[in-house]
Amino acid sequence: MSRDKLMNLLEQKEADMIALRRHFHENPEISFEEKETADTIAAFYAGKDVEVKRNVGNGYGIVVTIQGNKPGRTIALRADFDALPIKEETNLPFASKKPGVMHACGHDGHTAYLMTLADCFIELKDEWAGTIKIVHQNAEEVGPGGAKSIVDSGELDDVDEIYGIHFYPNIEVGHVEYASGWAYAGCSEISVKIQGKGGHGSMPHMSNDAIVAASSFVMNLQTVVSRRINPFDMAVVTIGSFEGEGVSNVIKDNLTLYGDARYMDIEVGKKIEEEVRKLARGLEEGFSVETEVTFAWDYPPLYNHPEQTEAAAKVMNERGVGTYLENASLTPAFNGAEDFGQYLLKIPGAFLNMGAKPETDTYFMNHHPKFDINEKALLVAAKTVGDITLSALGK
Amino acid sequence: MSRDKLMNLLEQKEADMIALRRHFHENPEISFEEKETADTIAAFYAGKDVEVKRNVGNGYGIVVTIQGNKPGRTIALRADFDALPIKEETNLPFASKKPGVMHACGHDGHTAYLMTLADCFIELKDEWAGTIKIVHQNAEEVGPGGAKSIVDSGELDDVDEIYGIHFYPNIEVGHVEYASGWAYAGCSEISVKIQGKGGHGSMPHMSNDAIVAASSFVMNLQTVVSRRINPFDMAVVTIGSFEGEGVSNVIKDNLTLYGDARYMDIEVGKKIEEEVRKLARGLEEGFSVETEVTFAWDYPPLYNHPEQTEAAAKVMNERGVGTYLENASLTPAFNGAEDFGQYLLKIPGAFLNMGAKPETDTYFMNHHPKFDINEKALLVAAKTVGDITLSALGK
Amino acid sequence: MSRDKLMNLLEQKEADMIALRRHFHENPEISFEEKETADTIAAFYAGKDVEVKRNVGNGYGIVVTIQGNKPGRTIALRADFDALPIKEETNLPFASKKPGVMHACGHDGHTAYLMTLADCFIELKDEWAGTIKIVHQNAEEVGPGGAKSIVDSGELDDVDEIYGIHFYPNIEVGHVEYASGWAYAGCSEISVKIQGKGGHGSMPHMSNDAIVAASSFVMNLQTVVSRRINPFDMAVVTIGSFEGEGVSNVIKDNLTLYGDARYMDIEVGKKIEEEVRKLARGLEEGFSVETEVTFAWDYPPLYNHPEQTEAAAKVMNERGVGTYLENASLTPAFNGAEDFGQYLLKIPGAFLNMGAKPETDTYFMNHHPKFDINEKALLVAAKTVGDITLSALGK
Amino acid sequence: MSRDKLMNLLEQKEADMIALRRHFHENPEISFEEKETADTIAAFYAGKDVEVKRNVGNGYGIVVTIQGNKPGRTIALRADFDALPIKEETNLPFASKKPGVMHACGHDGHTAYLMTLADCFIELKDEWAGTIKIVHQNAEEVGPGGAKSIVDSGELDDVDEIYGIHFYPNIEVGHVEYASGWAYAGCSEISVKIQGKGGHGSMPHMSNDAIVAASSFVMNLQTVVSRRINPFDMAVVTIGSFEGEGVSNVIKDNLTLYGDARYMDIEVGKKIEEEVRKLARGLEEGFSVETEVTFAWDYPPLYNHPEQTEAAAKVMNERGVGTYLENASLTPAFNGAEDFGQYLLKIPGAFLNMGAKPETDTYFMNHHPKFDINEKALLVAAKTVGDITLSALGK
Repeated sequence: MSRDKLMNLLEQKEADMIALRRHFHENPEISFEEKETADTIAAFYAGKDVEVKRNVGNGYGIVVTIQGNKPGRTIALRADFDALPIKEETNLPFASKKPGVMHACGHDGHTAYLMTLADCFIELKDEWAGTIKIVHQNAEEVGPGGAKSIVDSGELDDVDEIYGIHFYPNIEVGHVEYASGWAYAGCSEISVKIQGKGGHGSMPHMSNDAIVAASSFVMNLQTVVSRRINPFDMAVVTIGSFEGEGVSNVIKDNLTLYGDARYMDIEVGKKIEEEVRKLARGLEEGFSVETEVTFAWDYPPLYNHPEQTEAAAKVMNERGVGTYLENASLTPAFNGAEDFGQYLLKIPGAFLNMGAKPETDTYFMNHHPKFDINEKALLVAAKTVGDITLSALGK
Repeated sequence: MSRDKLMNLLEQKEADMIALRRHFHENPEISFEEKETADTIAAFYAGKDVEVKRNVGNGYGIVVTIQGNKPGRTIALRADFDALPIKEETNLPFASKKPGVMHACGHDGHTAYLMTLADCFIELKDEWAGTIKIVHQNAEEVGPGGAKSIVDSGELDDVDEIYGIHFYPNIEVGHVEYASGWAYAGCSEISVKIQGKGGHGSMPHMSNDAIVAASSFVMNLQTVVSRRINPFDMAVVTIGSFEGEGVSNVIKDNLTLYGDARYMDIEVGKKIEEEVRKLARGLEEGFSVETEVTFAWDYPPLYNHPEQTEAAAKVMNERGVGTYLENASLTPAFNGAEDFGQYLLKIPGAFLNMGAKPETDTYFMNHHPKFDINEKALLVAAKTVGDITLSALGK
Repeated sequence: MSRDKLMNLLEQKEADMIALRRHFHENPEISFEEKETADTIAAFYAGKDVEVKRNVGNGYGIVVTIQGNKPGRTIALRADFDALPIKEETNLPFASKKPGVMHACGHDGHTAYLMTLADCFIELKDEWAGTIKIVHQNAEEVGPGGAKSIVDSGELDDVDEIYGIHFYPNIEVGHVEYASGWAYAGCSEISVKIQGKGGHGSMPHMSNDAIVAASSFVMNLQTVVSRRINPFDMAVVTIGSFEGEGVSNVIKDNLTLYGDARYMDIEVGKKIEEEVRKLARGLEEGFSVETEVTFAWDYPPLYNHPEQTEAAAKVMNERGVGTYLENASLTPAFNGAEDFGQYLLKIPGAFLNMGAKPETDTYFMNHHPKFDINEKALLVAAKTVGDITLSALGK
Repeated sequence: MSRDKLMNLLEQKEADMIALRRHFHENPEISFEEKETADTIAAFYAGKDVEVKRNVGNGYGIVVTIQGNKPGRTIALRADFDALPIKEETNLPFASKKPGVMHACGHDGHTAYLMTLADCFIELKDEWAGTIKIVHQNAEEVGPGGAKSIVDSGELDDVDEIYGIHFYPNIEVGHVEYASGWAYAGCSEISVKIQGKGGHGSMPHMSNDAIVAASSFVMNLQTVVSRRINPFDMAVVTIGSFEGEGVSNVIKDNLTLYGDARYMDIEVGKKIEEEVRKLARGLEEGFSVETEVTFAWDYPPLYNHPEQTEAAAKVMNERGVGTYLENASLTPAFNGAEDFGQYLLKIPGAFLNMGAKPETDTYFMNHHPKFDINEKALLVAAKTVGDITLSALGK
């Protein structure tokens, strides 16, 4: 197939793409409750010559299989479709109609561009060989998200490569950034419950002060990153919540710490868990408290396979830049988390950061109540991913 | 005056005393809001040959002056009359009619016995020489309580000695315990606000973690008692509230610690304040946070003047035991706090712990929703304090 | 016996007493090596009508038994005779002849006065009833000292009461201070060996840093005194030696902490040991180190039995003050340690602090290379203890 | 010039190269005392058509300038020549003749290969254009080493590129490893003196415990790496020496901590210094101690300029591998330190890790008393660096 045909068709469908995005934006649903969103997507594919599997994995996930004109490689493309429990403050004409729920991370755009791109691949299916699997993923925002369950479903077992994108309002439209190798951090949620014994503030020896024990734990916890992890490895352990509210003259009997671990290597994550558990046991012995530790593996580090990343970069630089792109550049790993990493544990592929900076003077980052994307980014994303897909099919 | 007359008259008025106590119990008012209680007390003295000063000090405090048959020494007796914000669970027929407010510390009994004793002194005023000042004190439960303001009012400037009691449900009726010298702890409320800088949990270097700073502060705070105070001095510093609730993956920007210091010597209290402030400044320098420390001098240590204490002990042991008392014994200092200590900073005197153990199988300590006193203790208290007062007047 | 006879005889022997003290001062021997001192003492008693037992207990201890004119109570008097490994700097004409060894704690005086007093009791033995046991104790300076072994020997099993004194250069001659109840602290020596794993400073994750582990231990150790001991109990835990010398860029593999615990109640000492051991186990779990804790019970707290203390105080105040004493006063407990406490665990008695302030402008405390006592204190001590002994025998 | 000529000439001189290395090995001199070594080197160049500058920088540094047949680029090659204060245990026939001094880091080999290579360039000077500067550097082992002073001398101001190597006994002969970008860590030596106030272990309130203060400092210091440095940046802060030796029952008055900081970015090193100083000020405020901090900038991080590194890699892979090399591969940064980084702050270039694994069964790492290199590595190094130099001259 000539790539031009795909590009032209995408251009023709730009208004549809924007309309779809606005529809999703107006009707956001939070993770695991995206029933209507899934219905809308399924209705879109109804009657088209594709196979649609619904409720794939642990929620409303959908996998749409498009067969080309003859057998070949299988390429998967993924977009997530859940929204966030955030009260929208954008004043957009298509702002959320659901109070306290908002597409504040651009998943409305991800889904809209990918449906439109899928539609084009369906229309042009006589012109390309192989198989394209469109993954409309639920529940990306709540770790562990929907990705793992979709991988575990087996629906992607035959996939050769997988690609995905994320819109960012701080990158100009037309610009793409990609990391090669470790790209996004893995993250885990930690909780440490510390059970001491309450009592009157004047009689510490009759009690067992959970606040002092927890403070010692927090100080010792600093040694995990400072002394127990290879200094060349990225690792962060944050205690974001120290729930020790009480009464000034009453010794606190129990409290819970909630924290977050980040790492670029799953082995580092495991080491963090091991050391947190050790420190909790040490606290039990040394401070006569009881502890209860949970360590939830929310997202694995996201690893962009170098071969696929370089191939995508080549497409973008050799074909995209000057036509549908202005720039595609290598970027260092960063500390955010994405459950697209789950796919890349099993399937080679790459995840790209797409520019979606609004034309307004200021912009607001993902998860902000005033977050918005530039809708011109939808066509850019569709063309970029479409182009990479064609190359991948043809490899 | 023959002491027997006083004792007999008190016996005759026992039912009145109990009725008064039940009235107050049914109509509790929290600290600084004891308007009706004060009205009831004032009405009681109305028309009697005494001087009644109302609104003495910072609230509804009342000082009643009774003149004896000729000039002499001036002895003050104090009872506190405020209740607590506790929901009563006693099922008494005269339980609190005010939801969430309860006389859970026996101040109803303190006031009832003292009004009755005052009444007897008034009736018998031709039989004794000197002056008796009855101090009905407001707001003992909220530090700094009403005592200091009454002392500061000057109304007690001419008082030679002052006495007070507290009912305890764990001491048998008929028993009195007293400490000589330091008897109750001084206490101060501490707050330490720590202002760091919030941020995403994955980027600690862009933020300034208030939870880590506060944990370091709590650990260093342990050295105040362990290394900075004379080991022979009683000192406790408790952080009872570490208000660090937040989100697991968001670095906490600020939080406040609330704590309580106890000491038996005001100089130790001052040293604690000094060291807490030093540590806060150290935290500012070392952790680049801002701090705000408050150190409220709620109650001074209560010092029973040995001469007055021994004199009272002599009265109790030589006259009381075998008649209206079963036992009066020396007890060590304890860690509770009482604003009666304010009077004793200026006026010699003593404060006694009176047995008020209920006849039920179990008892509940002061401030418990099921706290109750044995009403037989009222007459014992009135006789004991009456006897001590007569001796003190006659010294 | 008339006390005057004893007093007169002591006065006659004052020069002998001083000569004895100077002999011992000139010939000091350190703990457990007091062979010549013991020989001198034994020679003194040779040929006198007493029973002398040598090598009692774990060293050169001597118990001399003097029988009075008829059976009666048995009173023991103790003086310690060991010196210290200190290089004397007094320039006294009778300064130590042994380089690096010095009677810098007054034991020379203790022994001299007691030998002289014993001599008088022997001379006057027809005049008093009962038994006096003179305990010349070895090795007081090295915990656990000789006292415990002498108690364990059984030689004092029949003793009714025991008395001892200590000279202090900061108390005026003629003054005696005594505490009733807990008087001197108990003390224990603590060692905590921490075994981590060495390595290059640039690779902390390959090593296990003993310095960081030990620092965490020291910080957590502060909570023993601050949170785990009754605030009314005296307790100190000092780490005086943190033997972590190493190379700046090499991770320290192991080190030992040495410390000292002080307490006025043996139960508090046990609690300290328990908590130190807990914290060490906690360190093992939390920091993956190995630890080895020793807790040596050097001296128990010294408890002056109130009955004996008050009886001695009565003798001193009613008979001594105005004759051989100027003042005898109650003093609070203090934090020093003395193995006389071992006797008092088994036998009622008291230990007195005797003034021995030199007539020079300045004085130097015990264990100082310039320490000296005022020799006038010897006669005062002999008279005071003699008088108390007569009263105790006659009880 | 045909490279073959250089290669052939080097082969002919292999025996000389080995002899030179053995001479230096037998006559080691520690940093800043390399007088005879420098004399030997200078004598080697005497009479040759080169300019020799001696005593360049802060010691015995030598810069030899070789002019080619016509003007061109200027390339510098550096070898260090100091030995270590280590007692050799190799039993080599040419082992150190100087007790306690040893070439245990391969600088003997560095110097020998480079002198020989220089000799060839001199012999062949009609065949190449440009200038070669041979830097024989003193004092690499003692931070800050000789490199900075040679850079500061201005002698290399006209240099276009600089190259250097280090022999490693864990890499096979014929193998070269190189990092691109940050390659070796920067390191600084830290000392923190803490002055408290001594005293008896039983009276902490009269003293100011330096051990507790230092332990708090060490714990707080962990937050530098854990919370104050970008988690993507390599940073280590090790306290290798905690010089707190004392007496168990005496409160320590002062002590010094010695440590080491490692970082891959000089800005990270500056941040570490800033935070260490902050924490020391915080300790002063919070613990009333005085502190004295030194932070010595021993070695900067070594940055291999990517362009020069890739050019060298190209030479090695395209020309070396299969002839004089077996393998040249990219390696990650590592945590060791090298003052070659000083040159690379000013001059583009690269530093290579050359295989020098002995043929014995076991090998010993640099700085070990049994460290040795495989002398076959000398010729490999000379050819590799020679080849790279020719390419660099010809660029």
